[in-house]
Amino acid sequence: MKIGIIGSGVVAQTLGAKLVELGHDVALGTRDPAKLDDKKNMAGTLREWLATVGASAKGEAKGKVVTFKDAAAHGELLINATHGEASIDALKLAAADKVGTKVLIDTANELDFSKGMPPGVLASWTRCLAERIQAAFPNLKVVKSLNTVGAPVMVAPQALAGGEHTIFVAGNDAPAKAAVAELLKSFGWKDVLDLGDVAAARAAEMHMAMWLHMWRATGTGMVNVKIVR
Amino acid sequence: MKIGIIGSGVVAQTLGAKLVELGHDVALGTRDPAKLDDKKNMAGTLREWLATVGASAKGEAKGKVVTFKDAAAHGELLINATHGEASIDALKLAAADKVGTKVLIDTANELDFSKGMPPGVLASWTRCLAERIQAAFPNLKVVKSLNTVGAPVMVAPQALAGGEHTIFVAGNDAPAKAAVAELLKSFGWKDVLDLGDVAAARAAEMHMAMWLHMWRATGTGMVNVKIVR
Repeated sequence: MKIGIIGSGVVAQTLGAKLVELGHDVALGTRDPAKLDDKKNMAGTLREWLATVGASAKGEAKGKVVTFKDAAAHGELLINATHGEASIDALKLAAADKVGTKVLIDTANELDFSKGMPPGVLASWTRCLAERIQAAFPNLKVVKSLNTVGAPVMVAPQALAGGEHTIFVAGNDAPAKAAVAELLKSFGWKDVLDLGDVAAARAAEMHMAMWLHMWRATGTGMVNVKIVR
Repeated sequence: MKIGIIGSGVVAQTLGAKLVELGHDVALGTRDPAKLDDKKNMAGTLREWLATVGASAKGEAKGKVVTFKDAAAHGELLINATHGEASIDALKLAAADKVGTKVLIDTANELDFSKGMPPGVLASWTRCLAERIQAAFPNLKVVKSLNTVGAPVMVAPQALAGGEHTIFVAGNDAPAKAAVAELLKSFGWKDVLDLGDVAAARAAEMHMAMWLHMWRATGTGMVNVKIVR
């Protein structure tokens, strides 16, 4: 599948590399594709990323670094992997309103880094990024997912507790959620829980508060929740 | 142990009955102890509660219905089991500032029922009930716990997934958290995760958003998270 990723940080690079490994044709969108040697926060440079995915690419699989706009045009499926505070602006730069009907997986969390680490969580019952993205880009079928775990767990759930834990989806379009669930299963996710429509994404976004405290309490980012029922 | 419960709804009644069963001397505090026959939301009347706990009481164990103030005076350990929106007022009525140094387990969630069901979650990164209770009653050692599960799960964790799931504590006082963890273990909890100081209670309170959506998604209140790490 052709996949366009909006963003080029650790989440974008991790998802992009896994998707190329799985045989997809990935365009990773960044503000300035010429800056291949800038050090990314918690990730390598984009030149390093290109080398990594080049080595793992087989058959149709490939990875390239392009503008936000070219990434949005490239993908049959899109992924928002920007910082939540910057997501709407990045999607505007990507002209995501002009790409027609596409599924967008929104992996972002709105965090407040102004007071240092750990960041504050901006999501609340009345503030939901996925809902705002859906309202701003009605042509997209927004599916919130993957924002509740760290990047290494996103693409390797089996590395934690044998994969016996839960990932969420939320969105208005059932076929879009089913497509995202399939992709998640190709990553190794066994338990995909549908929380409801896009408004339900607030629960996944507010969960970042729990994640940050679990991270501090357990001392590891290799941590997640399993929903027992 | 002498335990004073502030509140008389389903959480108060469920915890109170379990505590009597475990041999504790429980005073359940309510606004008007004369109203023994009022139907409580999702629970029986207090007369029914008294009959139930009377039948299960053995040795020193007993349960009585008293005023908020008498419950706060009675307990060596206190439990806030009121609605979160009413908790500060109830603790003021209980004169909880004049009972000396006591541990208070805060089980409450601040919810907005004004727009019908499901209620809205008022907790956010900057709005934490436990933190406000701690600030208003510095003589109390506030430990947030049990607010992340439904009343039946609070006292019977083994009824769900063999008890293989997690309950949280958060508070400023380590011995107080240890005492609460002991009490939780007497209920059957195996995994008690300390999230940090009382400010960390916001994570447990914001979790109510996830709980409400899990409840809707799974169709059962017998649901919880297990923290895998």
